[in-house]
Amino acid sequence: MSISLYTATVPVLTQMLLALSDVLKKGEEYAQQRKCDPNALLQSRLFPDMLALVRQVQIACDFAKSVPSRIAGIEVAAYEDTEQSFAELQQRIAKTLELINTFTAAQLEGTTIKEVVLRPGTPKEKKLSVEDYALKYGMPQFFFHITTTYNLLRHNGVEIGKKDFMGSY
Amino acid sequence: MSISLYTATVPVLTQMLLALSDVLKKGEEYAQQRKCDPNALLQSRLFPDMLALVRQVQIACDFAKSVPSRIAGIEVAAYEDTEQSFAELQQRIAKTLELINTFTAAQLEGTTIKEVVLRPGTPKEKKLSVEDYALKYGMPQFFFHITTTYNLLRHNGVEIGKKDFMGSY
Repeated sequence: MSISLYTATVPVLTQMLLALSDVLKKGEEYAQQRKCDPNALLQSRLFPDMLALVRQVQIACDFAKSVPSRIAGIEVAAYEDTEQSFAELQQRIAKTLELINTFTAAQLEGTTIKEVVLRPGTPKEKKLSVEDYALKYGMPQFFFHITTTYNLLRHNGVEIGKKDFMGSY
Repeated sequence: MSISLYTATVPVLTQMLLALSDVLKKGEEYAQQRKCDPNALLQSRLFPDMLALVRQVQIACDFAKSVPSRIAGIEVAAYEDTEQSFAELQQRIAKTLELINTFTAAQLEGTTIKEVVLRPGTPKEKKLSVEDYALKYGMPQFFFHITTTYNLLRHNGVEIGKKDFMGSY
């Protein structure tokens, strides 16, 4: 059974970003209901030198847009990391969803890209086949930041469950 | 570019389980160095009604063995959930790695399974195509439990970083 790099990425990224959006809505509602500063959630961390929730969402979006872009061999759209509110994070997710849904199955299946270079020109430069880049690097990184966002909200008492994390599959 | 359901699952599961094993070793060493009860980590939770670390590792292994087994259409090996120590969790991971590495690329590529039924015979029964089962259900669930294990250790001060989470790719 053959699948395409499109099937392994774009629909999965879409599912998980929609779920992330819903999970963040529940986080925002929780802050409103408890009349607490939304920043208590947005700037929360699981440990002082881990990234705060806002950065987790930004980076999740970054991997979501990088994966199909790099498979297709087109420049990855740059987003400024200026989001400070739940509403702005929702906009970033919406913008990312819009972008990744411009990719067609034919476009990713027909890619001529064979290799992706991570951190080019640095001492940590690493070359990966496009499959390894997508499956062993990009998607695991994406899932890391999606799950950590969920865990941050859960740790702070937001009433969400695995069903919310998974979204519609 | 076509890939196989094998490429999208077994090598990724292997990479992440090896990384999980290393992350847990660092957790065990941390408990030893600080002379704290290993159960303080093993039974830790991010919130009272989330599952403890031991269960996160058990379930990660469960998805790791279920995904290739169900793609291949063979019965999923049952593991008893009896682990109580870091050493026993390492054994479960090793056993899971051994199992999933018995699957060959040809076996998963040549599968005749078209559909996977989740929670059969229950009101929550759900039928998925085998691709959707693997990519939109099994792998996201697996990543959830791997990441949550990492986050639990990180939250408790174990000195691990994204590099440890990612393993060798």
